Amino acid sequence: MKASILTIGDELLIGQVLNSNVQWISERLTGIGITVTRHLSVGDEMAEITGALRFLQSSCDVLIIGGGLGPTHDDLTVEALSRYFKIPLRYDEEWVGKIEEFFRSRGRPMTENNKKQGYLLRDAERIDNDCGTAPGQFLMEGRTRIFVVPGVPHEMKSMMERVILPKLMKDPALGSTRILKETLLTSGIGESALAQRIHSEVERIRSIPGMSLAFLPSNVGVRLRLQMAVSTTEEEAAFRKELIALREACGKDTFGSEPGTLEEAVHRLLLERNETLAVAESCTGGLVSQRLTRIAGASKILRGSLIPYQTELKTLELRIPATLFDQFGVVSEASAKAMAEGIRSKWGTDWGLGITGYLGPEGDTHSPGGTVWIAVANGTQTLAREFHFENHRERAQERAAAYALDSLRRALS
Amino acid sequence: MKASILTIGDELLIGQVLNSNVQWISERLTGIGITVTRHLSVGDEMAEITGALRFLQSSCDVLIIGGGLGPTHDDLTVEALSRYFKIPLRYDEEWVGKIEEFFRSRGRPMTENNKKQGYLLRDAERIDNDCGTAPGQFLMEGRTRIFVVPGVPHEMKSMMERVILPKLMKDPALGSTRILKETLLTSGIGESALAQRIHSEVERIRSIPGMSLAFLPSNVGVRLRLQMAVSTTEEEAAFRKELIALREACGKDTFGSEPGTLEEAVHRLLLERNETLAVAESCTGGLVSQRLTRIAGASKILRGSLIPYQTELKTLELRIPATLFDQFGVVSEASAKAMAEGIRSKWGTDWGLGITGYLGPEGDTHSPGGTVWIAVANGTQTLAREFHFENHRERAQERAAAYALDSLRRALS
Repeated sequence: MKASILTIGDELLIGQVLNSNVQWISERLTGIGITVTRHLSVGDEMAEITGALRFLQSSCDVLIIGGGLGPTHDDLTVEALSRYFKIPLRYDEEWVGKIEEFFRSRGRPMTENNKKQGYLLRDAERIDNDCGTAPGQFLMEGRTRIFVVPGVPHEMKSMMERVILPKLMKDPALGSTRILKETLLTSGIGESALAQRIHSEVERIRSIPGMSLAFLPSNVGVRLRLQMAVSTTEEEAAFRKELIALREACGKDTFGSEPGTLEEAVHRLLLERNETLAVAESCTGGLVSQRLTRIAGASKILRGSLIPYQTELKTLELRIPATLFDQFGVVSEASAKAMAEGIRSKWGTDWGLGITGYLGPEGDTHSPGGTVWIAVANGTQTLAREFHFENHRERAQERAAAYALDSLRRALS
Repeated sequence: MKASILTIGDELLIGQVLNSNVQWISERLTGIGITVTRHLSVGDEMAEITGALRFLQSSCDVLIIGGGLGPTHDDLTVEALSRYFKIPLRYDEEWVGKIEEFFRSRGRPMTENNKKQGYLLRDAERIDNDCGTAPGQFLMEGRTRIFVVPGVPHEMKSMMERVILPKLMKDPALGSTRILKETLLTSGIGESALAQRIHSEVERIRSIPGMSLAFLPSNVGVRLRLQMAVSTTEEEAAFRKELIALREACGKDTFGSEPGTLEEAVHRLLLERNETLAVAESCTGGLVSQRLTRIAGASKILRGSLIPYQTELKTLELRIPATLFDQFGVVSEASAKAMAEGIRSKWGTDWGLGITGYLGPEGDTHSPGGTVWIAVANGTQTLAREFHFENHRERAQERAAAYALDSLRRALS
């Protein structure tokens, strides 16, 4: 089954409100095997709403319409549906009674305005609102199942979960098709290099009917989403087989699946080895440590961190001779290694992580802004690597933190 | 002028990604006096994209198309535009050279895939991408100005701000009404307390035609957006007058206007006083330091930070006697004060900031999860305050970091 989602409200079009409803509804519909093909938002205007209905209705089996059910003059959804489908309205006394009760129980007077929320489409089934005054509605128009829900997120979600999703799941048209989905997480490799690495898997997956693979790059890693609509156990097996092949092809570049995180992978690896970490991070300013401490129980693996932001503190706290900085620069292989080794021996941990860089706009004569050195020390060996990020502080900090966690992950696994 | 926004990508339709781009673009277009009438999202499918173009093009003067410009097989935007408008593609050697340079400067090889990003519509003006490899495009089709931008938020935003918004602002079709808008930033005060404090200003603003005030609460502070559509200098003066009154009414609760940040306010105050800071942060895990180091030149005011995540390090590095923890608990007024004073004297700075808390799910017998103590020391006095945040690690970390910066800001101003 194909679905479209229409959201109505000027607040969306002027950018005052982030349309999180449409993401939530899409995720839920996808989860029960419905393919969402269009999201459309229009303002509180009759011609816009009817134009939207014309565009969407013919192409979908399910149409979810959200918003425009309030009590004021600019709430036009029900009237627009009435005009477009030529269905008269009916006045639902029972629902108006519930609105009155809603206000009475909150010790507030019901206004004349609210009576507007008692008008439903004659042919529609009412969907009760258990936390507000705007009722939802369900009607069939041709082959399209139309659901009308309020724009208030928790009212909409309650109707979706209580009534709409269960109704759709029982719909014979849905068939036995389910959507299988898994998103592999990679780090330390760019989108095009990854595409090249798994080229033959991508080609094979594309040749399998109903299966799709998407590359989702971000500032901190590329995610790979494998997806398939399945209705037989053979199809399900094919999906599992490709997922395994894909994971193998990614090798060390993947560290898990959604909803995992890179810091969780590092945390798990250290716990498995019963080892501890100390961090000396300069240009990342605490971001690596903050990511590691997002996880409950982080004190089991992270002893602590030092952010020696002024160079002098690197000498004072990590006993790195000032001559080393004179000779090689503060942002250098020697400096990063000395930081990783220094913090490791200072606090007696198994692992030390050292990060030093210029995030810009300034650099020095050795290194332009965007240069970052990352070192990992474990007492036996210290590995360091140089990175060149874009000259933009916040994004370079994010990328440097991700690559630092990734360097540690690769050393641990 | 009327605008529509088309965003392309399966990740939107399956609900994997929140469409924040469309909100950002809408807000900016509205800000320069353009009326956004439709948001449409479709998947990575040729027929869907051309169908979307058909639906949108006839009804708008400006069409912004985002996404589907990547180097992989499922990026179809340019090809769809080529088919729908019957415009052949051209291969932009100059841009491919820039892509090569982009990879070279990052020490990574360019793949064959990326050459796809060198194809532009023959009649389009190229919009350079200053932080990625997908070029933007501009073309006129009939009366419609069409802009094509990448889906990666910061690449899109850069093109909008450098090229697209300035071009639209110079467009003769735009007319003379301008939207004035200013967003005051507050911290350390909740929405209802703030509403009470500025009650009479709110009432007055609501009575002025065309002027509006919105409360925008978030996890880290409440923003106040004052907005007005103006076409005369009198209206502009009225806006300025209300803005000043509003700022005065907020007093110490406001620290600036967007796009300012709390860390910038702290940075500025320390620079003005020519004073320095050292931070000992435990439960926030580095977030306070990371926010401070987002600002270029942070080493002028931040000497460094210590994250003594294991309690032992608090004793070892800050000379806090273990008996203090036994007597008062690790999360206590005494502990936070000792951390702020300890880090200040250890590194000889003017100010010391100490943060200790339990972010949950666990606490201890003294303090439940969500309890955080924040202390600010300047050598003369040390002030500490207790906070109870919700028992949710990431949000509690964010709120604790915001309140820590706010405590420092209030002590400095």
